[in-house]
Amino acid sequence: MFQVRTDLALEVRELYQEEKQQEIPGVKVDQEEDTDVLVTRVDVMDQQGAEIMGKKQGMYITLESPGLRKADADLKDHISQVLAKELKALLPERKNLKALVVGLGNWNVTPDALGPKAVAKIHVTRHLFKMYQKESDDHMIEVSAISPGVMGTTGLETGEIIKGIVEHSRPDVVVVVDALASRKMERVNATIQISTTGISPGSGVGNKRMALDEESLGVPVIAVGVPTVVDAATLTNDTIQLVIKAFSKQAQAGSEFYSMLEKLKEEEKYGLIREVLEPYNANVMVTPKEIDDIILDLSQIIANGINIALHPGIDLKDVNRYIH
Amino acid sequence: MFQVRTDLALEVRELYQEEKQQEIPGVKVDQEEDTDVLVTRVDVMDQQGAEIMGKKQGMYITLESPGLRKADADLKDHISQVLAKELKALLPERKNLKALVVGLGNWNVTPDALGPKAVAKIHVTRHLFKMYQKESDDHMIEVSAISPGVMGTTGLETGEIIKGIVEHSRPDVVVVVDALASRKMERVNATIQISTTGISPGSGVGNKRMALDEESLGVPVIAVGVPTVVDAATLTNDTIQLVIKAFSKQAQAGSEFYSMLEKLKEEEKYGLIREVLEPYNANVMVTPKEIDDIILDLSQIIANGINIALHPGIDLKDVNRYIH
Amino acid sequence: MFQVRTDLALEVRELYQEEKQQEIPGVKVDQEEDTDVLVTRVDVMDQQGAEIMGKKQGMYITLESPGLRKADADLKDHISQVLAKELKALLPERKNLKALVVGLGNWNVTPDALGPKAVAKIHVTRHLFKMYQKESDDHMIEVSAISPGVMGTTGLETGEIIKGIVEHSRPDVVVVVDALASRKMERVNATIQISTTGISPGSGVGNKRMALDEESLGVPVIAVGVPTVVDAATLTNDTIQLVIKAFSKQAQAGSEFYSMLEKLKEEEKYGLIREVLEPYNANVMVTPKEIDDIILDLSQIIANGINIALHPGIDLKDVNRYIH
Amino acid sequence: MFQVRTDLALEVRELYQEEKQQEIPGVKVDQEEDTDVLVTRVDVMDQQGAEIMGKKQGMYITLESPGLRKADADLKDHISQVLAKELKALLPERKNLKALVVGLGNWNVTPDALGPKAVAKIHVTRHLFKMYQKESDDHMIEVSAISPGVMGTTGLETGEIIKGIVEHSRPDVVVVVDALASRKMERVNATIQISTTGISPGSGVGNKRMALDEESLGVPVIAVGVPTVVDAATLTNDTIQLVIKAFSKQAQAGSEFYSMLEKLKEEEKYGLIREVLEPYNANVMVTPKEIDDIILDLSQIIANGINIALHPGIDLKDVNRYIH
Repeated sequence: MFQVRTDLALEVRELYQEEKQQEIPGVKVDQEEDTDVLVTRVDVMDQQGAEIMGKKQGMYITLESPGLRKADADLKDHISQVLAKELKALLPERKNLKALVVGLGNWNVTPDALGPKAVAKIHVTRHLFKMYQKESDDHMIEVSAISPGVMGTTGLETGEIIKGIVEHSRPDVVVVVDALASRKMERVNATIQISTTGISPGSGVGNKRMALDEESLGVPVIAVGVPTVVDAATLTNDTIQLVIKAFSKQAQAGSEFYSMLEKLKEEEKYGLIREVLEPYNANVMVTPKEIDDIILDLSQIIANGINIALHPGIDLKDVNRYIH
Repeated sequence: MFQVRTDLALEVRELYQEEKQQEIPGVKVDQEEDTDVLVTRVDVMDQQGAEIMGKKQGMYITLESPGLRKADADLKDHISQVLAKELKALLPERKNLKALVVGLGNWNVTPDALGPKAVAKIHVTRHLFKMYQKESDDHMIEVSAISPGVMGTTGLETGEIIKGIVEHSRPDVVVVVDALASRKMERVNATIQISTTGISPGSGVGNKRMALDEESLGVPVIAVGVPTVVDAATLTNDTIQLVIKAFSKQAQAGSEFYSMLEKLKEEEKYGLIREVLEPYNANVMVTPKEIDDIILDLSQIIANGINIALHPGIDLKDVNRYIH
Repeated sequence: MFQVRTDLALEVRELYQEEKQQEIPGVKVDQEEDTDVLVTRVDVMDQQGAEIMGKKQGMYITLESPGLRKADADLKDHISQVLAKELKALLPERKNLKALVVGLGNWNVTPDALGPKAVAKIHVTRHLFKMYQKESDDHMIEVSAISPGVMGTTGLETGEIIKGIVEHSRPDVVVVVDALASRKMERVNATIQISTTGISPGSGVGNKRMALDEESLGVPVIAVGVPTVVDAATLTNDTIQLVIKAFSKQAQAGSEFYSMLEKLKEEEKYGLIREVLEPYNANVMVTPKEIDDIILDLSQIIANGINIALHPGIDLKDVNRYIH
Repeated sequence: MFQVRTDLALEVRELYQEEKQQEIPGVKVDQEEDTDVLVTRVDVMDQQGAEIMGKKQGMYITLESPGLRKADADLKDHISQVLAKELKALLPERKNLKALVVGLGNWNVTPDALGPKAVAKIHVTRHLFKMYQKESDDHMIEVSAISPGVMGTTGLETGEIIKGIVEHSRPDVVVVVDALASRKMERVNATIQISTTGISPGSGVGNKRMALDEESLGVPVIAVGVPTVVDAATLTNDTIQLVIKAFSKQAQAGSEFYSMLEKLKEEEKYGLIREVLEPYNANVMVTPKEIDDIILDLSQIIANGINIALHPGIDLKDVNRYIH
C-alpha cells in the first residue's frame, strides 16, 4: 500500500487524527502560537506511542511559519530566535558544553544541501580552545562542525564517519542538520522540526542508513530539519484523492459506483501512482522553482538559531553580519 | 482550459495526432533512427501549420535518446556528433562565418542553468581574431559568447541586451542555448531540440519576454534546447487522465456515470489541477533528484556539439578534454 | 623603465610627492578623517594635472580603513555608510534617477570577482517598474545590473556590451564596480576608490580595453573599485628598493659604490625585476591567503553602499539581511 | 635564519647540492626522462639521510613537466598515465585492495582546493560492494573517499577525522591528495610529488598538524601533491639573492664592500625579508592569475591517475569522460 512519505512527526499525528479522530495513545501534544510562528511540541512518551507513530520515543518540536519562504528579514530573525530558544531547552545543562554540529546531505543537490550550507555558517571554536589551551570561556563554548558528504560520493556510511569523530573529539552533544521530506507542499521550506531522537535510517532526501542517535553515538543527538521537497508520489496521491472526492460528491452512498470508488481507494490507488510515475523513473521530486535562494535563506536561519543557542555570547546582532 | 505546457514542437504535433489522428496540415515530418538516437524533423512549412501548432514557421529537429540521462560516455559522444551534424546543416553557408552563442537562463537555478553552463564551455575566439587582426583561419571561426542572466537579476530584457551586442559585434548567426519544459517526464533530459525560429516570448523555464529571432535581431537565430523540467501541472494532469481512464474501463458507455466522466473531462479538470496545486503556490516543478549532475553532463554535450559544428578544426577528440 | 602599477589616484599623487616634495599642479587634495576611515578627495582640475597624473580630469575619492580586512561588523557597516554618502554626492541630482550597475571582472578568478559578486547583491528593480508601468516610487529608483564577463571568456569588448545595453535601456548614470591593483600591500582590500571618470583602458586586474566613461557611453559613469592584488613586480621592486637602501646607509656619498647604487637605481632595476619574475612567467600576483573570504566581505560592503546611495528607502538595517 | 619553504624532497636535495656540491649521504636518486616528463625518485634510505633532509625515510617521486600548465590535452593524458604507473608501483600488492582517498585542504581557498577537487572526481565504489555484498570484482576495487575540510572550518584535527574513518572502514591503504608549496615558481603547477611517507605536520598550504602516515593510521599512506603556490618570502628571498649577485659581480673579492655583501648574506637577509613583507601581514602568497582554471585541470589529472592506478578496469579512455 502507498505510504505517504513524511519525516515530520506532526504530519504522522495529523494523518492519524484524520483517520481516527482522536489523539494517539502515549503521545502528548501542546501548541504555542504568536503572530508569526506556530510551535507544536509532540511528545512521544512511551513505546505504544512510538509504535503507532513509527517514530522513536522523544520530543518533536515543529516551528511552522509560512513567512519563512518570503523575504521578510524581521520575521526570519524572529524565527532564528524561536529556534534558538527551543533548541537551548533541549541541550544538556552543563557549563562548558562541547558540541559537534553535523550537516547531512549532498552539497551538489540543491534541496539536499541545507545541512552542509547551514554548517558552513556555524561559529566553530574547538581549534581555538585547543590552540590557547583554554578550558572555558564566558562568550563561547567549544564547537566543532563537519559535513561528511553522502554515501554516493564517499562510499562511507555517514554513521561510520561521525562515530569516529565523536570517539576522537568527545563532544557532549551532537546537533545534526538535515533536509527532510514533507507530505504537504505548504510545509515545504516553511517548517523547522527539532527532535531529541536524532536521525533514523532512511530519513531525509538522500539515503542515510545508519542511525545517528544517542544509542549509536553515545551522546545526546538533537536533529534540526526542514522539509525541502515533497515526493512526486505524494503529489500524485493528493491528486487521486481529490479526483475521487470530486466523484464521490456525485455518487450516492450504497450505489455500485460508490462502492467502486471505495474499492479503488483500497486496492488500486498505489497501482495508479506507480503507473503515473513509472515513466518518471521514480526518482523525481517536486520542488519550488526558486529552491536555490530558499536553501540559502534557510541555512542562514538555521545556523543563526544554532549559533545563538550554543554560544552564550552570540546574539542576533552578531549572526546577521559577516560570519562565514 | 488547461493547456499542457511544452516547448517541444514534437509534443505539440503528438498532441494533435492523439486527438485528430492525422498529420497537421502544412507540416511535414520525417524521422531517422540509428540504434541510439531518434531524429525527428518537424518542418512547419506555412502559416496554417504555424497557427495550428502555435509555433512559428521553420524547422524543428528533435534528438531523442533515453541514454542521454545515463553515464554512457560513448553514447554521449555520439549524440554530440549527431547534434553537430544537424546544427551544421542549419548554419548559414559562408566562409569565415561569425557566430554569437547566447546562454539563456539563471546560473543559480539548477534546471535553468543549462544555457550558461553550456556557454561557459564554448570555444571563444573573437578576441583573438581582433588581437591578431586576422580575417580568417582554417581551424577556427570567429565566435563570441555571452550568458546575459535573467530579468529577475538584471532588471533588463534579455532581448535588449542581445540586440545591443549583435549591433555592436555584428555576428552572421546567433545560436541560443536554453532549458525547456516538456509535457512528458520521459523526454526530460533525454531530448535535444534544434530550431531555426529562435526563442519565443514566454518559452523556457524562466520568463523571457522579448523574442530572440531573426526578426528581432536581424540575423538567423538557431535555438538549441533541452527540456529539464516538467510542470507540476502536467504531472497532475497525467494523474487525472489515468484515474478517469481507470474508471472509464468500468463504466458502461451511455450510462449516467460515463457521461459524468466525459463531462468532467471537459469542465472540471482544470479546476482539479488548480485545487491540487494551490497549496503548492503554482510555482513548483518536477525534476529528477540528480538534476545537478545531469545539467553538467548535458551542458558538456551541447557545448561539444556546438564547438564541433562551428569550428572546422575541432572534433570529438578535442572537446572531451580540458576545455574550460 | 619600470612603472609601478597602480589604479589609485592617491598612490600616483603619493609617488609624485615622494619624488618632487610638492603638490601636483592642477590637483587639489582634501582629507577628512574619523576614527576608522580616512577619506581623501583628489580633484584633478585641469589638463596639466591630468597629464602629470596620467589620469583623466575628475574627482577621485579614496576611503582607507585597515579594519576593512578584519571581521569587525560595525566598522564594515560604518564604511558602507561612508561609501553611500560619498557616492550619493556624485550621483546626478534628479528625481526618479535611472541607474545601471555594472560588475567588471571574471567570476572565476577570485581577486577579479569583486565586481560580479557585488553586482549580484544589488537591489534590482527596473523590471518591476516596467511590469507595473510605474514611473516613480518613493522608496526605490529604477535600477538594472549586469556582469558582462571578461573578453577572454566572451570574445567581446566589455565596452561593446555595455554601450548596447545603455542604448537600449537608457539609464541616467552608470555605476561600475571593479577590482583594482595597488602598489602597496597595506592598501589591498583596505581601500575603496570612487571616481567620476569611469574605467580607463587597461585598468583593473584583467584586460579591459575600451573605456567605460561618459564620453563612450553618453551618461555619467561613476567607478567604485577596491585594490585586491599587488603585482608581483611591485613586490620585487619594493624588495630591491629596500636592499639598496640598506646598502646606501653604509656607503659614503660620493664614493664609487654610492654612485654604483645610484646608477643601478636608474638603469638596472627593471632588468632585475624581469630576471626575478621571468621563471614566474610574468603572469603572477601577490594576494592574501584568505582572499576568497575577503572578496565576499568586500562585495557585500560595496553592494550595501551602492544600494543605500541609490534607493531612498533602503538603509543599513535592510542591506545586512537576506538580500540575494 | 630564513628557511626556504618547500614541501618537495627534490628541492631540499637541490638546496643541499647547491651548497655542498655532493649527494646527501643516505639518499639515493635516480632519474628517468621522456620527451615530456622528468621523473626523479629520491629514496631517503636511512636515518642520516632523513635528518639532513628534514624529511622522513621513504620514497619521494617527482614528475616534472612544464607542459602541465598549458592546455595540451595529450600531454595531460600522458602525465595521468605516468602518475598512474608510479602510483601503482607503490600500492600494496594484494588482490581486492581496499583504498581510502583523502582530499586535504580548503574548498574555498582556490590554491588549497586541489585535494577536495581531485577527490570529487575519484570513482567511489565501497557502498556498491556493501550494497551487493560483493567481496571482489574484476574491474573495480573497493574505494572510498572523503575531503574532511580544514581545522579552521571544522575545529577538528584532520588526523582525528581520518583516524576514525580508517578504524571504522578498514582500508588497506590511504591515498592523500594535497596542495604543496614550492621554492621555485617554475615548479608551481608543473610538478607532482608522490611519496610513501604520508603528510607531515605543518606541510601543505594550510595548517595540518597531526601527521597522516602509516604510524598514525596503521596502514600505508601514499601522498600525492602538487605545489600550487610560492611563499611571498621565497619571492622576496630570490629577489635579494639576485640583487646581491648583481652587486657582487662589480665588487672585488676581499674589498670591504665584498665582505659587506657576504656579511649581509648571513645576517641581514632575513630582516630585509621581514621588512618587505611586514606591511603584507606575512599572510600572502604568490600565485598565477589563472589559478582557478589550473586547479581544475590539475585535479582532473590527479584524479585520472589515481582512478587508473586503483581500478583494474579503468583506463584513460574512461576517465576523460563524464565522471563526476
